[in-house]
This record gives sequence, C-alpha cells and structure tokens, in this order.
Amino acid sequence: MIENEQLQHWIDRVDTELVRYFANKDMSCNPLDRAMEYTLLAGGKRLRPLLTMVVVAEFGKDPEAAIPFALASEFLHTYSLIHDDLPCMDNDDMRRGKPTNHIIFGEANAILAGDALHSEAFLLLAGAPHETLSAAKRNQVMVEFCEAIGKRGMVAGQVMDLAQTGQETSQAQLELLHQRKTGALLRFCVRLGAHLADVEQNDLDALTAYAEKLGLLFQVVDDLLDEESDSTTLGKTSGKDAGQDKATFPKVLGSDEAHDYADTLLEEALSALEKVSRPLSFLEEIVRYVRHRDH
Amino acid sequence: MIENEQLQHWIDRVDTELVRYFANKDMSCNPLDRAMEYTLLAGGKRLRPLLTMVVVAEFGKDPEAAIPFALASEFLHTYSLIHDDLPCMDNDDMRRGKPTNHIIFGEANAILAGDALHSEAFLLLAGAPHETLSAAKRNQVMVEFCEAIGKRGMVAGQVMDLAQTGQETSQAQLELLHQRKTGALLRFCVRLGAHLADVEQNDLDALTAYAEKLGLLFQVVDDLLDEESDSTTLGKTSGKDAGQDKATFPKVLGSDEAHDYADTLLEEALSALEKVSRPLSFLEEIVRYVRHRDH
Repeated sequence: MIENEQLQHWIDRVDTELVRYFANKDMSCNPLDRAMEYTLLAGGKRLRPLLTMVVVAEFGKDPEAAIPFALASEFLHTYSLIHDDLPCMDNDDMRRGKPTNHIIFGEANAILAGDALHSEAFLLLAGAPHETLSAAKRNQVMVEFCEAIGKRGMVAGQVMDLAQTGQETSQAQLELLHQRKTGALLRFCVRLGAHLADVEQNDLDALTAYAEKLGLLFQVVDDLLDEESDSTTLGKTSGKDAGQDKATFPKVLGSDEAHDYADTLLEEALSALEKVSRPLSFLEEIVRYVRHRDH
Repeated sequence: MIENEQLQHWIDRVDTELVRYFANKDMSCNPLDRAMEYTLLAGGKRLRPLLTMVVVAEFGKDPEAAIPFALASEFLHTYSLIHDDLPCMDNDDMRRGKPTNHIIFGEANAILAGDALHSEAFLLLAGAPHETLSAAKRNQVMVEFCEAIGKRGMVAGQVMDLAQTGQETSQAQLELLHQRKTGALLRFCVRLGAHLADVEQNDLDALTAYAEKLGLLFQVVDDLLDEESDSTTLGKTSGKDAGQDKATFPKVLGSDEAHDYADTLLEEALSALEKVSRPLSFLEEIVRYVRHRDH
C-alpha cells in the first residue's frame, strides 16, 4: 500500500462511500446489487478515484465534493474487470485475492453486474451534485469519459488484447493496446480532477502528459510483476500472461530493458509535473508508488 | 411494417444514419466495429428512435436534429440484445432473421461489442450538437437514461427475467419485470423527444403515461406472438418462452385474457394521448401498430 497518511485517508474515504452506496440494497432485484457490490468491495488499490481526489486537493479544492465523480471510475474499472475475467475472455478464477464474480454469481449475473456498474458510472457523473461544475463542463466530462472507455478506448484495448494473444507484437502495438486498455481511463481520472478544480489550460495539458506516462508505467510494472511475483502477493494468478501467450513489455523488450523503460517513464512523468504551476507532491508520490509497488 | 409513408421515411433516415456511423471503420481495432455494426444493421423495427423523432415532429420541431439522440436508444437496445442472446443468458442463435452476434464473432467479441455500443450510446447523448437543448437539460436527459437502463431499469429487468424462469410468477411481478426490461427504455425514448421539443410539463406527463402503456402493450403482444407465430415471421426462434419455461402474459392470464388485456392497454394509451395539448396522429398510429403487428 501507499505509505502516506493523507493518501490512505482518501483511499479509506473511497472505501467508505462504496460501502454506503450499497447500504440499501434493492431486494426486488436480487442478486444484482450483491454481485455489483461483491467485486467493488473486494479491495483494490483505488488508484483511479484517488487520482481524481488528489488533483482536486492539490489545487486547493475540496476532495470530498469530488468523491461521487471519483467513484464513477472505480465502478467503470470494476465492470471491466468482471467482464475481462469471464471464461470466454481471460478466464480468471481469482481477482483481488477472492474468487471472481462469475465463480460466485454465475456468468449471466456477472455480465449483468458489469453492465449495471457501467450504467451506474454514468449516473454518478451525470447526477452527482457539485457546486462549481457547470452543466456545460459536466457534458464535456461525459464526452471525455465515453472516449476513454468505449470503442476508441478501453473496450478497443481489450479487443486488441484478445486479438494479439499468440501473435508477434511490436512495442508500438503494445503501447497502443495499453494506452487504450488501461491508459485512457487513468488519463480521464486525472483530467476529471482537473476539470472539477477548474484548472488553467496549461496545467491541464501538463497533468494530461503526466497521466499518459503514469498509465503506460502502470502497465509496464504490471507486466513485470506478473513475471516476477507470486499469486499470493498479487491477489490474482501470476504468470498468466506467459501461460496465455500474451505479449508483455518484458517479453517484447527484455526484462532488464523493461525495468529501464519503467524508470524512464517515471522520470518523464515527474518532468511533466514540473510544468504544472504549483508543486504536486501527492501526484509525485503516486507515480513513485506505481513504479515501485509489489502488487 | 408500419404502413405510413412519413413514418417509413423516418425509419429509413435512422437506417441511413446507422450505416453512415460505421462508414469509417477503425481498422486498428478489428473486429470491434464490424461486430457492433453487424447487429445494429441486421434490421429491426427501429421503434425506439422512431418514437423520439415522432414526438419531436408532432410538436413542430425538426426531427433531423433529433436523430443522433434517437440513435442512442437503438445502440443501447442493440447492446442489450447481444448480451441477452449469449449462451449463458437466453442462448439464442437467431435474431432479426440472422445468426446472433456471438455465433459470428465469438462470445468475447460479442460481449465487447455490446459494451462498446453501451458506451457509444452515452457519447451520442452527451456529444451530439443541438441548437436548443440546454446543457442542464442534457444532463437531465443523461440521468433519465441511466435510470432507464441500469440497475433500476433494463438490467434489473433482465436479472429478474433470469431469476424468475421456471418460478411461479404473478401478473404484478411480470409487469414489474417488463416495465424494467423493455418499458423503461421505451418510456425514455418518448420523454427524450419531449425534452428535445421542450414541451410543457402537462404534455410531458401525458406522453409519459402513453409511453408506459405502450411499453407494457409491446411486451404483452411480444408474448402473444411468441406463442402464436412461426420463427420465419418473427425473425427469431418462436416458442422460446415456453421452451425455457418463462412466465408470459398468456401463461399467467390465459390467451384470450391476454388479448383482452392488450386491447385495454391500447385504449389506455390512446386516452393518455387525448390529454396532450395537440392531436398526435403518428403516436396514435404507432400504438395501434404495436397492438396489431405480426412480428
């Protein structure tokens, strides 16, 4: 975990609000709420909502008011995990140290829980009250969210991932795949915070550059961990990528070179932060954590 | 088909714009666009976009400007069809007279095509230009859309449908199920047109009542057709409900009573229309068509 009391406090706030969201379950539609809640509350680093809250806080605005918006990305991320884990996709039995959603609720309910989390993410963005976010800017946020997660973003990345399994893959292809599959949503999370804090264009650009490096770094480290860690530490099955013959950064670049590349991406992310008009110590800490995390 | 030249023209406009939407396919992410397009363009009554365009036109506004918004419901409906047809759900091989999406593209791509259509529906609502729709009203439209399609609407209905298969079901339970599974989106389509045309509250309420009766009628007739028609006319497998031991209106009420109920719902929908401040001949024609359609 991130060893910083303030960051941990925000992560705890996310967890608390996720629990509260499902406090009044709709019993007329069992087991939908239970299936949605199961994977949402199964743990996780909460990196996506954290990024949004941190950006808001770094610009002197109230991160509490950002929470409903920040949760949207966690809902969206969780839907993607549930669908990616399905037997016809990555066929994973373990996630966040627990049996995957379809193992507990069955495939049909898992798909539907994902679908409902997907819609609910939009409800959070469209419906959450916010004192200073204009309706026009909220529309812009929704458009950016769609671009990040749909056929130009996350879903496209997953389709590329499935199609390229077992194929020869270049570094450029691998980067495009991950820029879509995980990078686009992380980029959105940072920009969401920037929109909520109403930052200047120059700061928005620098934060976007930071987010893009962070996203790629996140995936390079993910690949390295999959190769080097054991399943208990990861909370999911390790060595899956090699077993499924997936292209990874260590495989395409070599392990040492992948470590070097991760270091370079860290430096580039830190350089981007220096272009922002104020010091951003929490964002610096987060990208260092992403480089050196062990799960 | 609906035998009305003006209505058919609007349906043709929807079909033309759907084709145009996928004219420039993203070849970097084959086969996602192809899988999305396949089921979208496989035909269908286009009832949902038609409802939106008709309401706009009946209030003297330009239905062409409503098309991108109207398409959103067709994207959303198509995603739900693709997911509902999956082997772990209704396990359908035929839809709109053609093999279902997963038969052609495989289960993984079918799930992802549905996911991408889901996100893209939001992009249409959030991003389509419109001269008179305020940003605040657009936000309200997005909130209503989420409520109609997610864990309080369509997805909840599908979960109830799966859970109640083979169970004793009352008329009230069956109505709640279908109000969620198909009624909520049809209701949204009518209200979307009303929002785009910026109608008075009184008219909005009457149109909403019309839409609720129409939605229920649609399902009662669907159940009757499933029982009474052959697969060629339906374009999908007939007699599926009985084969899967699903609760239907003819089963719960009896066939004759289900026909009577459909007639009652038609009358109630027409009564609701009479409360609107202007004559609405196209909406009248549509609900008569929904009562007497043969597929």
